Amino acid sequence: MGESLTESLTDSTPPGAALLRPVGARAGRQGVARQQDGRPGPADGHEAELLLARARAAVDPVLREALGTLPSSMRRIALYHFGWQHADGTPAAGGSGKAIRPALVLASAAALGGPEAREASVRAAAAVELVHNFTLLHDDVMDRDATRRHRPTAWTVFGDTDAILAGDALQALALRLLAEDPHPAAPAAAARLAGCVVELCAGQHADTALERCRPDEVTLDQVLAMAEAKTGALLGTACAIGALYAGTGEADVTALDAFGREAGLAFQLIDDVIGIWGDPDRTGKPAGADLAARKKSLPVVAALASGTPAAAELAALYEAPSDKEDDAEDLEYLALTVERAGGRDWAQNQAADRMARAMRQLARAVPDPEAAGGLLALAEYVTRRSS
Amino acid sequence: MGESLTESLTDSTPPGAALLRPVGARAGRQGVARQQDGRPGPADGHEAELLLARARAAVDPVLREALGTLPSSMRRIALYHFGWQHADGTPAAGGSGKAIRPALVLASAAALGGPEAREASVRAAAAVELVHNFTLLHDDVMDRDATRRHRPTAWTVFGDTDAILAGDALQALALRLLAEDPHPAAPAAAARLAGCVVELCAGQHADTALERCRPDEVTLDQVLAMAEAKTGALLGTACAIGALYAGTGEADVTALDAFGREAGLAFQLIDDVIGIWGDPDRTGKPAGADLAARKKSLPVVAALASGTPAAAELAALYEAPSDKEDDAEDLEYLALTVERAGGRDWAQNQAADRMARAMRQLARAVPDPEAAGGLLALAEYVTRRSS
Repeated sequence: MGESLTESLTDSTPPGAALLRPVGARAGRQGVARQQDGRPGPADGHEAELLLARARAAVDPVLREALGTLPSSMRRIALYHFGWQHADGTPAAGGSGKAIRPALVLASAAALGGPEAREASVRAAAAVELVHNFTLLHDDVMDRDATRRHRPTAWTVFGDTDAILAGDALQALALRLLAEDPHPAAPAAAARLAGCVVELCAGQHADTALERCRPDEVTLDQVLAMAEAKTGALLGTACAIGALYAGTGEADVTALDAFGREAGLAFQLIDDVIGIWGDPDRTGKPAGADLAARKKSLPVVAALASGTPAAAELAALYEAPSDKEDDAEDLEYLALTVERAGGRDWAQNQAADRMARAMRQLARAVPDPEAAGGLLALAEYVTRRSS
Repeated sequence: MGESLTESLTDSTPPGAALLRPVGARAGRQGVARQQDGRPGPADGHEAELLLARARAAVDPVLREALGTLPSSMRRIALYHFGWQHADGTPAAGGSGKAIRPALVLASAAALGGPEAREASVRAAAAVELVHNFTLLHDDVMDRDATRRHRPTAWTVFGDTDAILAGDALQALALRLLAEDPHPAAPAAAARLAGCVVELCAGQHADTALERCRPDEVTLDQVLAMAEAKTGALLGTACAIGALYAGTGEADVTALDAFGREAGLAFQLIDDVIGIWGDPDRTGKPAGADLAARKKSLPVVAALASGTPAAAELAALYEAPSDKEDDAEDLEYLALTVERAGGRDWAQNQAADRMARAMRQLARAVPDPEAAGGLLALAEYVTRRSS
């Protein structure tokens, strides 16, 4: 289920009108910035899209240069994965994702240290993007996911071994970029990024382990902890690294880490809601795909844990051998059962609550709403998607 | 075939009498040290064993502390892999390998910077050992190797996903150790170690790719380059990192890198010879195991490239479908054919030549034979094994 976030965050489909508008996010936005002035703010998504495009433009040359140092065997797989080459090695114009994480690094550095800090953090932003892509390469192998960014995944093209090796090489490249960065914040950033990799590994482990559990064996705490490790950790680390490059104190670094984690969890909650009730025309996935796969996504586990009669019914439906294909009616009924057990409301309220917490952390580290605007826009962007 | 080196280098069987004594190694030893004094030197292996035991004692506490910071899911797999826990989590006394690479870091630091530099490089030595173990975890998954250090490999116990994730986490731990090291050499060491990981990945890629090629498609240059990337690179990097912690200039770092690479290649050559002609009672493997698996090891590729009538015969035997089990006679005949085509002589001469080159590089960076003694002992140790 963490996977769906990852896919969505790196999906190249532009966001449309908001399917879900978590109340807390909007309240937070107002609390931090909108009440301060009347101008059209980040909530319309334009500011976020601009920040993402600028982040992409800033880090792509660094990424291309770093990938250019790889031996040809590894370079070929990496360039394919980034969408910059076809499998046969010819150039491709494909998108390499939305650059959410680099944008968070740059926006955090800018929020706390201005344009100079932003400029200084470009290499670190590229390192964070390399780590993200290393995890995508490995997760796709482990999860047997065949499609990524509308293309066949690297393991389906080059085989498991080469996809694993290319992922290993990207992690090394990421940490080499920071080791070679003379900026005084680089060692602390490298230590934080390496620590985050360990957390991402534990998150992916928990995800695969939970998927193997019986529905009644999975607790809400477990699945929230998994989502934080698998999704929140790297968004938080991206923000914390930006703060490090701005030269701020430990308190601000911690607050920005927490901001990114909470926003990441809000994102995952919304993404899981979309995975059940999203419009197939917008998501590009069949309706109820997560239910068909019996994914123990956050709304489902909340529903199972609700102690309601609907929870018992859902548990029975989830436990039943799913060897027969569900038809549309089965999936609709499953979705309705999750909703009746309170899973949808819980997820939306949790997302709102997480966004409110994110806003409080942001306001603590960046009291000036003008300076906080970029981070706010990005946080709203990732939790306001419709696809 | 790189695999067999790795296994042997981490094998806990103590070395016995030398099966092979590459002429160059002995000449090198005499050239650098033995001619200087008459005392019993490293050639008897005692000095090397002492250095290995001291390295193990120095890095184990750092490794245990680093592994102790892992989340429990990853820690369990790592502690199993290191032989410090059984699969059920109870303590185990198993060996975690011979610590050749950490010993090379410490010996290089000591050779160029004395005891203080050695002491300062312990953390870096542990980082090198973590990288080595990360590659073992991943290589075993890719190569489907079921045994490592006389125990079932991690993937056979915990599954592919967890073995891959634990490997990822160990790479991150390695680079975090260096990122957190305040020593002025740490960033350069981290950059070098990360660059080496990329080379190791390319080497493993080449190894798996070459094994899939037809015998007549593989050139000696390719297989030598593969062996250097897969085996020589990390031994060279270990030595170079030791030199960095000694605060020496770039020329000495480069010379020690080259020393380690050449010694590593010599090792691989000898290891491949043992893989064909080694005494099963000593190697613990059935006679001719590498031939039974139709491995394109260095002596085999040299034989195939010899242009002799025996080469053509060997090619035909290697290309024939090996669906029937070879009997002892078949394997003996294959070994004889490699030998008739000059594969054995070539490998032994190459090993001697590589050791001679290693000695020249060592003498360049460490002219004092007393100071060079430790590195020399280790280089001889790894190329003098009988099992």
